[in-house]
Amino acid sequence: MKRIFDVILAYNESKAEAFIQELRGKNPLFICTIGTTETAKIPGISAAGRNPELTDYTPPADAELILLGRCKCIPDVPVTPEGIPTPALITMSALKLADIPALVASGGLNVKPHIPLLDLGGKPGSDIRMGRAVENVEEVIRRARIAGENLSKIADYLVIGESIPGGTTTALGVLLVMGIDAKEKMSSSMPSNPRELKFRTVEASLRVSGEKFGSLSDDPIRAISCVGDPVIPAFAGLVLGAAERVPVLIAGGTQMGAVLAVIKSLNQAILGNIAIGTTRWIISDKSSDLKGIINQIADVPILAADLDFSGSRFEGLKAYERGFVKEGVGAGGAAIAAMIKSDGTITKEALTKEIERNYMRLIGLK
Amino acid sequence: MKRIFDVILAYNESKAEAFIQELRGKNPLFICTIGTTETAKIPGISAAGRNPELTDYTPPADAELILLGRCKCIPDVPVTPEGIPTPALITMSALKLADIPALVASGGLNVKPHIPLLDLGGKPGSDIRMGRAVENVEEVIRRARIAGENLSKIADYLVIGESIPGGTTTALGVLLVMGIDAKEKMSSSMPSNPRELKFRTVEASLRVSGEKFGSLSDDPIRAISCVGDPVIPAFAGLVLGAAERVPVLIAGGTQMGAVLAVIKSLNQAILGNIAIGTTRWIISDKSSDLKGIINQIADVPILAADLDFSGSRFEGLKAYERGFVKEGVGAGGAAIAAMIKSDGTITKEALTKEIERNYMRLIGLK
Repeated sequence: MKRIFDVILAYNESKAEAFIQELRGKNPLFICTIGTTETAKIPGISAAGRNPELTDYTPPADAELILLGRCKCIPDVPVTPEGIPTPALITMSALKLADIPALVASGGLNVKPHIPLLDLGGKPGSDIRMGRAVENVEEVIRRARIAGENLSKIADYLVIGESIPGGTTTALGVLLVMGIDAKEKMSSSMPSNPRELKFRTVEASLRVSGEKFGSLSDDPIRAISCVGDPVIPAFAGLVLGAAERVPVLIAGGTQMGAVLAVIKSLNQAILGNIAIGTTRWIISDKSSDLKGIINQIADVPILAADLDFSGSRFEGLKAYERGFVKEGVGAGGAAIAAMIKSDGTITKEALTKEIERNYMRLIGLK
Repeated sequence: MKRIFDVILAYNESKAEAFIQELRGKNPLFICTIGTTETAKIPGISAAGRNPELTDYTPPADAELILLGRCKCIPDVPVTPEGIPTPALITMSALKLADIPALVASGGLNVKPHIPLLDLGGKPGSDIRMGRAVENVEEVIRRARIAGENLSKIADYLVIGESIPGGTTTALGVLLVMGIDAKEKMSSSMPSNPRELKFRTVEASLRVSGEKFGSLSDDPIRAISCVGDPVIPAFAGLVLGAAERVPVLIAGGTQMGAVLAVIKSLNQAILGNIAIGTTRWIISDKSSDLKGIINQIADVPILAADLDFSGSRFEGLKAYERGFVKEGVGAGGAAIAAMIKSDGTITKEALTKEIERNYMRLIGLK
C-alpha cells in the first residue's frame, strides 16, 4: 500500500492522499473523548484495565497521561490484565513530539480526572443488557456540536480519539441496530477476540429494547440510547460541529464505524471532510475488518500510522505486535497528525524512541 | 484620548497602541469564566440578578446567551433589579458579528448551564465573611493553566471575561489583602456604588481570617482562599497558561485588578503580554478608578470599547449611560476584539444595532 511519510494509505487511496495533502502545514487540535459504561464490567468484555472494576479508572487516567504526562487518579499507567500499557502512551508521545495541543471531553464518567475537562452534560453508561444504555443522547450531541463549531474556528483541523472500555461491544451494538453487518468484523484489544461474548451481550440488549438488526437504521439517537455508550454522542457531536468548516480525522479502530454511522445519519453533507486515522495493527489484524465496516457506511479514506514495536526492548510494547491493544485513545490519529505536522521529521522510529523514553519514565526505570 | 477604530487607548497609550497593532489580522478565542459565590447573596451587594437568590442563575444564563444566543436555565436574559439587561448581550452581539469563537470555563457553580462547559475542578464560593471563601484554589489554577497552555497553541490570542455576581466585593478583598489600595476605587454595577457595604463585608472576612491590608501580598493563593471568589483562580490560571505564548486581553472592570495582582505574584514575566479591555463606561466612571488600581500593580495598557447607548430607543440599554451595569461578561473586551478583527468595519454604531436587534429578539419584540 502507498505511504506518505510513515502513514499508510490503507483505504480509498486517492482520497487518503488528498486528505493528507490538505493537512500539511496546518495546525491541529487533538480532542480525547472519554466515558465509562457498566458494559465494560461484564467479565471478559474489556481488557482496558487490570480487572473489570478498574475500567472506570482507565479513561480518566488516559486523559491525565495526555495532558499531564503522567496519571494522577491511579498510581501507574492503565494496563491490560497482562500488564500491557495503554495506547495513551503512544498518543501522549506523539502530541508531545509534535507540540500538538489537546483537550479532553467527557461523555459521562464514574471517575473524574484531575485535569481541565470539557463537560458535555452526559452521564456514565449503563450495562447495555438493560436496554437503556445512555441517557440524554440528543442533548450531549447538541452540546458537543457547539463545542466542535467553536473549536473549528481556531484549529485548522481536529483529530478526535476516544477512551471507553467496552467500546467495541457498544459500537457493535450501534452498528448492528443501524443495519451495518459488523458481526464478524469488530476488532478487540485482546488477541483472542471474545467475539461470541460481545455478540451475545448485544443480542441481550436488542432483545430487551425490542430492536433487531437494522431496526434503527434511521434513528441514531435511539440506537445509542439503547445499545451504545456515552462516548459515541460526544464524539459524533464534536465531528458534526467541526467538519462543516475543517477536516476531522476520527481516530480509532472499528469503533469509528459506529461514530461514522451516526454522523452520516445526522449530516451526510460533511462526510467529505472526514477521514479515519488508525494504526497498522488494526489494518493488518486478520480477526477484524475495519474496511469491511466502513465501506458499508461511507466513502471515507482510512489512514494508518505505521507503528512498529517489534524491535522494542520492552515486552509491554512488543506485545502490541502480537495483537494486544492495537489501538485506542486516538493513538493512530495522533501519530499520523504528528508525522504530518512535522512534515515527516517524526518518523516511526523517532516516535518509538519517544514512546520508550516515556514508558521508562512512567514505570520508574529512569 | 487617542483611539484606534472605536477603541479608546485609555491608559499607557503607546503600549495600548502596540498591543492593538499586534492583534490586527489575528484570530482570537473568547473565554468566559463563570462562577457563583454566596457573597453575592448579601442584600445590596450585587445587582447581577433580579434579586440576591437569582444571582446563582446569572453566570450560567450569561454563558448560555454567549454560546446559544439565548438563555435556557432562566426564561429571559439576566437583568438587574431595575430590569436592565446583562452585558452578556453586548458580548454575544460582538462575538456573533465578528464570528469569534467562544468557550465557557467554570470556576465553581451552583447552577449548571446547558452548554459545553470547561470544568476546572472548582466549587462555588462561600460567603467571604466566613473567612474561607474558596476551596481548592491551587488545583483550579493548575488545571486552568493547562487549559490556557493548550488553547494558546491554536488561538492567536485570547480574550477572557468573567461573570460572577458579587465579584467586585471579592476583588476588593483580594486587592486589599494583597496590599493594593482599592478601597475608594472599585466600580459597581449600580450608579449608587454600595462602597461602604462592600468594605464592611471585606473587613469582616479579614477579621475572621486573621488577615489585614497587605498581609498576603506574597500569597495570592491564600488571598483568594480567604476573601476571593472561584472565578479569580480560573481566570488567572488561564492567563498564566496562555500569556507565555500569545497576547491575552483580560476583559473586565476593576475586578481585573485582582486578577492582575494574582498573575503578577505568580509569574511577573508574562505581564508584557497582557492588556486590560474594558468599556468607556468604566473609564469615564467618576465613582471608581481602574487606572488608579492598575498603576499600583503593573505597567499594562488599558483599552476601552467606546460603546454608546445614549441614542438607543430601549430604556434598558440607555440605562448603561446613567451608570448601570457598565461592564461584565467580557463585554468591553469582546467589543474591542470584534472591532480589531473586523479592521474597524464593526463600528460602535454597527455593534449597537446588532445589540438592539438581539435585545428585541430576546425580549420578544420580534
